[in-house]
Amino acid sequence: MTFPDKQTAAVFHKHGGPENVKFEEVPVGEPGEDQVLVNIKYTGVCHTDLHALQGDWPLDVKLPLIGGHEGAGVVVKVGRGVSRLKIGDRVGVKWMNSSCGNCEYCMKGDETICPHIQLSGYTVDGTFQHYALANATHATLIPESVPLEVAAPVMCAGITVYRALKESGVKPGQWICIPGAGGGLGHLAVQYAKAMAMRVVAIDTGDDKKELVANFHGDVFVDFKTDDVVEVVKEKTGGGAHGTLVLSTSPKSYEQAASFARPGSTMVTVAMPAGAKLGADIFWLTVKQLKVCGSHVGSRLDSVEALDYVARGLVKPYYKVQPFSTLPDVYNLMHEGKIAGRIVLDLSK
Amino acid sequence: MTFPDKQTAAVFHKHGGPENVKFEEVPVGEPGEDQVLVNIKYTGVCHTDLHALQGDWPLDVKLPLIGGHEGAGVVVKVGRGVSRLKIGDRVGVKWMNSSCGNCEYCMKGDETICPHIQLSGYTVDGTFQHYALANATHATLIPESVPLEVAAPVMCAGITVYRALKESGVKPGQWICIPGAGGGLGHLAVQYAKAMAMRVVAIDTGDDKKELVANFHGDVFVDFKTDDVVEVVKEKTGGGAHGTLVLSTSPKSYEQAASFARPGSTMVTVAMPAGAKLGADIFWLTVKQLKVCGSHVGSRLDSVEALDYVARGLVKPYYKVQPFSTLPDVYNLMHEGKIAGRIVLDLSK
Amino acid sequence: MTFPDKQTAAVFHKHGGPENVKFEEVPVGEPGEDQVLVNIKYTGVCHTDLHALQGDWPLDVKLPLIGGHEGAGVVVKVGRGVSRLKIGDRVGVKWMNSSCGNCEYCMKGDETICPHIQLSGYTVDGTFQHYALANATHATLIPESVPLEVAAPVMCAGITVYRALKESGVKPGQWICIPGAGGGLGHLAVQYAKAMAMRVVAIDTGDDKKELVANFHGDVFVDFKTDDVVEVVKEKTGGGAHGTLVLSTSPKSYEQAASFARPGSTMVTVAMPAGAKLGADIFWLTVKQLKVCGSHVGSRLDSVEALDYVARGLVKPYYKVQPFSTLPDVYNLMHEGKIAGRIVLDLSK
Amino acid sequence: MTFPDKQTAAVFHKHGGPENVKFEEVPVGEPGEDQVLVNIKYTGVCHTDLHALQGDWPLDVKLPLIGGHEGAGVVVKVGRGVSRLKIGDRVGVKWMNSSCGNCEYCMKGDETICPHIQLSGYTVDGTFQHYALANATHATLIPESVPLEVAAPVMCAGITVYRALKESGVKPGQWICIPGAGGGLGHLAVQYAKAMAMRVVAIDTGDDKKELVANFHGDVFVDFKTDDVVEVVKEKTGGGAHGTLVLSTSPKSYEQAASFARPGSTMVTVAMPAGAKLGADIFWLTVKQLKVCGSHVGSRLDSVEALDYVARGLVKPYYKVQPFSTLPDVYNLMHEGKIAGRIVLDLSK
Repeated sequence: MTFPDKQTAAVFHKHGGPENVKFEEVPVGEPGEDQVLVNIKYTGVCHTDLHALQGDWPLDVKLPLIGGHEGAGVVVKVGRGVSRLKIGDRVGVKWMNSSCGNCEYCMKGDETICPHIQLSGYTVDGTFQHYALANATHATLIPESVPLEVAAPVMCAGITVYRALKESGVKPGQWICIPGAGGGLGHLAVQYAKAMAMRVVAIDTGDDKKELVANFHGDVFVDFKTDDVVEVVKEKTGGGAHGTLVLSTSPKSYEQAASFARPGSTMVTVAMPAGAKLGADIFWLTVKQLKVCGSHVGSRLDSVEALDYVARGLVKPYYKVQPFSTLPDVYNLMHEGKIAGRIVLDLSK
Repeated sequence: MTFPDKQTAAVFHKHGGPENVKFEEVPVGEPGEDQVLVNIKYTGVCHTDLHALQGDWPLDVKLPLIGGHEGAGVVVKVGRGVSRLKIGDRVGVKWMNSSCGNCEYCMKGDETICPHIQLSGYTVDGTFQHYALANATHATLIPESVPLEVAAPVMCAGITVYRALKESGVKPGQWICIPGAGGGLGHLAVQYAKAMAMRVVAIDTGDDKKELVANFHGDVFVDFKTDDVVEVVKEKTGGGAHGTLVLSTSPKSYEQAASFARPGSTMVTVAMPAGAKLGADIFWLTVKQLKVCGSHVGSRLDSVEALDYVARGLVKPYYKVQPFSTLPDVYNLMHEGKIAGRIVLDLSK
Repeated sequence: MTFPDKQTAAVFHKHGGPENVKFEEVPVGEPGEDQVLVNIKYTGVCHTDLHALQGDWPLDVKLPLIGGHEGAGVVVKVGRGVSRLKIGDRVGVKWMNSSCGNCEYCMKGDETICPHIQLSGYTVDGTFQHYALANATHATLIPESVPLEVAAPVMCAGITVYRALKESGVKPGQWICIPGAGGGLGHLAVQYAKAMAMRVVAIDTGDDKKELVANFHGDVFVDFKTDDVVEVVKEKTGGGAHGTLVLSTSPKSYEQAASFARPGSTMVTVAMPAGAKLGADIFWLTVKQLKVCGSHVGSRLDSVEALDYVARGLVKPYYKVQPFSTLPDVYNLMHEGKIAGRIVLDLSK
Repeated sequence: MTFPDKQTAAVFHKHGGPENVKFEEVPVGEPGEDQVLVNIKYTGVCHTDLHALQGDWPLDVKLPLIGGHEGAGVVVKVGRGVSRLKIGDRVGVKWMNSSCGNCEYCMKGDETICPHIQLSGYTVDGTFQHYALANATHATLIPESVPLEVAAPVMCAGITVYRALKESGVKPGQWICIPGAGGGLGHLAVQYAKAMAMRVVAIDTGDDKKELVANFHGDVFVDFKTDDVVEVVKEKTGGGAHGTLVLSTSPKSYEQAASFARPGSTMVTVAMPAGAKLGADIFWLTVKQLKVCGSHVGSRLDSVEALDYVARGLVKPYYKVQPFSTLPDVYNLMHEGKIAGRIVLDLSK
């Protein structure tokens, strides 16, 4: 398989707005012992990419950085020690680029909290380039029946919500409540939840979001602008949600969640608004025996399973394909909160 | 068994300070269908009694109220439908006075979140009287080998910390960190944790507390006034505590706990400072995949087990016996934070 | 509400064949303190009724006995201490008639292993009569939308398989294998499993059973007479079932289950062939780290949940209604293995 | 570090008795990409070594074979891709030699059921040689404070029982019953169980075993030759053991275990008598809701934790050091059931 020495990548050298992202010519990387080189065909754009660009979080970003962590492509070269993958394999490059494999967390499958974790498009270069390096243990094999452009948004949005739903502890037949149900993560969460036999209360606003949720068979839609959220959730679920997936970055979402949560239930924090504190009241948290549980990524196994739901036709990402060159516009739309579902970039354009 | 019609009880008619607590003559209650009448011999005094008196919490207190929820005594009369207990049984009256037995929570043993829960010395009259009514299903049989004055402080402090330790998910050989280890709850938590094969980091301040913890074989003592708490905990535990029991009411304790927590670990909130918010940073909570879990009481089974540790000699409450008549002084000492271990009132004095 | 003093019941005075079952006039019972009297409208007939009649098991049967434990009817009288139910309530009478409520098992919701358990139609009289006594805590409220004749077979067959599916630990998206899928328990197990988002391998034989399973959207049907069961299950499930529900009484089912089980998976034993030993090979059990788990009944909560699936239209018992007077014929058909789905007796005929 | 090209190893070329084991000169192996070469200083001898020699199990043994899987030594050479270990590291070589790292089981930390597992001294050459090859991911670092001769028997016996105790689900304060408590695995199981805060019923026979168990603070000793095992266990544990670790190879142990097991409890099968079936009665297994769970090995994490208990002084293997040359005698003694505790071979002799 042939590939060039040089390529065009979307790079930023310092934190700031979308104007800082430049398309530059950079060398194609050489896979290390345990890496593969992946010809990225499609990549999603995630809200986290915006956080990385803006330098929002108290976790250092590699600079200069090629962002992106929802890539899908084809292996074009494998490192010397790699036996798991071969040239031609269709793989996804996900938010967790690599973990050490040997720490106490990795040893029990909790690789998502490995202290040596590397994050694509954050601590290492990501998928906003034609040829990206990926760890051969972590790159996810994409089932034959799943097109690469469909797989792309699963590699972060899909995996993340699927894992978070598992962390919620909600069982088949029980109610999950999803604030932010109409967004890039939310529309996938509704589908995964239904495919996992949960009953879904979707919280968002507007007729478009309502229709989107209805298409995915969400059981109840609550409009946070027009409904009394806490009352409606409690009534529809017969006493409160058995679990809540907080995908909205509004601090109010956390407060409301503590109010409509069923006693003993779990709130999973996924969205990470910059600098926000968890404003839950300790008294109610304690008396209602609520659990709060952080979850921002998935494991290798979560990734395999999340793709399997797509391969079985139970989950369909809602996305729009645009040329790679439109990335700066996407950042702007994202900043304005104007993206429905997900935008997937076609690297060939 | 004979008993009087009238008795002296410590009552308050409105919220406020200890001066509101009056010793009054009140009628001895008549057990309902599923209740027993217990001749209270000893009762502990808990910080919650102070919260109830002051009206600190957003949960209504019965008024006028006879407080107290750490009672130990002898059954002197049983309700018509009671077969589980008989006159002469030695029983404890605990914080959870009753639950409905039929709701979805009670059906699975999660009676602590029963929506119909009654709380001794809060929503129903408690143990600051000679004859208290107790639900026959919930009154806890006290093992022969445990003196009533020893059992008293177990009925809330002991049960609560024992349950919270179970909720922490900390396994034998792992580290539990206990901010507030030298107090009424803390000194019992250290002992239960050791008896459950956990390794204990005790956080408190001063040589007296340090010695108390050492007597109970706490592995590490951290003085929050002189030590760099976060650094010491992380170093001694090889990367952070596997679980944290927040018994201190200082908001700072919650912030520190999020910092010294091992990734993936659980913080159990037990102390309920009036009006406090959980100030944990959502970013770190999410990225470290921490769990926060509220726990303020124990179930019937927790009560049996907590007493069994005492009966087996593995846990010894540290307490001082005082006459019933000193209750107002106890409130004052408590308000000033001057009580080491627990004060137990002798109702006969 | 009026009801007679006397009624007709199907009684047997000694163990043996269906000829021992007599329709006799017996007095209508008087509810105890914690009981209700239920006017049974419909009752299912379960294979366990045959075991009780034949005296197959090493657990003593009350003699003489009125059998039956899948009853649905209306409360006509309540005991003095009963507040949970009232006259006119539509309730189910299930296999577990009562538990003590106070033992270590009951306290944690494991009432199914209460040592003081009473079993309907086995240790106490059951539902093969017009007026049956039921424990007021255990009688299950039947949702408005579920007809009594539909509820009847849920009260044992439905609850049992629903609970067993939960015990299997199989998660949404994973494979459950069900030997005996076309029978009275099996056809419900297939539906519950699908409604819980499991993937189902149904094992049985013949075109009728195959069609029945297909109607309920079973994913794979394996005919144990014509297929290589172990090979087909392993191939279709990509390495073995994540859980197995053994509903067939053939000892061979247990041996095969150990062979097609995925490493680390759970086999739930539900069927209890008289005198049978679990013939699993210790070597493979140990090396494959299999789990075997017994489950023969469900809790109060399982009952509520099992009915909820029916109320939501996700599970539909397949049954035939016959007059009460045909009970002896039903035993004969059962003995010959000739019943498809379930037979429900109409007590009014 | 220098080491020879040739060495002496204990080899057998075909299955049979101890006379088949020959000391032969064999080449020192060359570590592959992900392996290390370990200079074995001490090795335990396990009953499994005898099973391998005799060809007892339905799992193929490499032939010719160098047995042994409880090795402790020093790394003398590392493979090209190894970064986790370096020359001079003190490591243990355990029963699980390697796993694939990428299958569904490895991904979640269930490496013990990896279908690509290699077993030391069974499917690959083991520790009955001076220089053994070990997988660099699986070789266990031995804490400084643990002498190599002490670590050796932990590498199989210790890890296995520690893991099995975890699988039993027995909680602090609950009862574990250990048939075979006085043997090589049993005497370690008693100590681990106590260090994990369990209460221990030890089953074995004779005063020597009784004393051994007493030294390790076992709570109750039951002599299977002179006591009514089932009755005594039920009485001492107040209703049956909360878990059972079957370390005895007698089939009767499994039958008894089902009888003295507490309802809902777990029996862990560890011993694997050749050709034996699990003779538990399906009726009682099902009605008592027992769980049976196979466990024959531990994970990497189990190994680290098992050694940590030894490093903390809570578990002390009871063993006798003998020269390497006595291996055939050890097999004979083992065959005759005459070994108390463990025999550790000193490779330098």
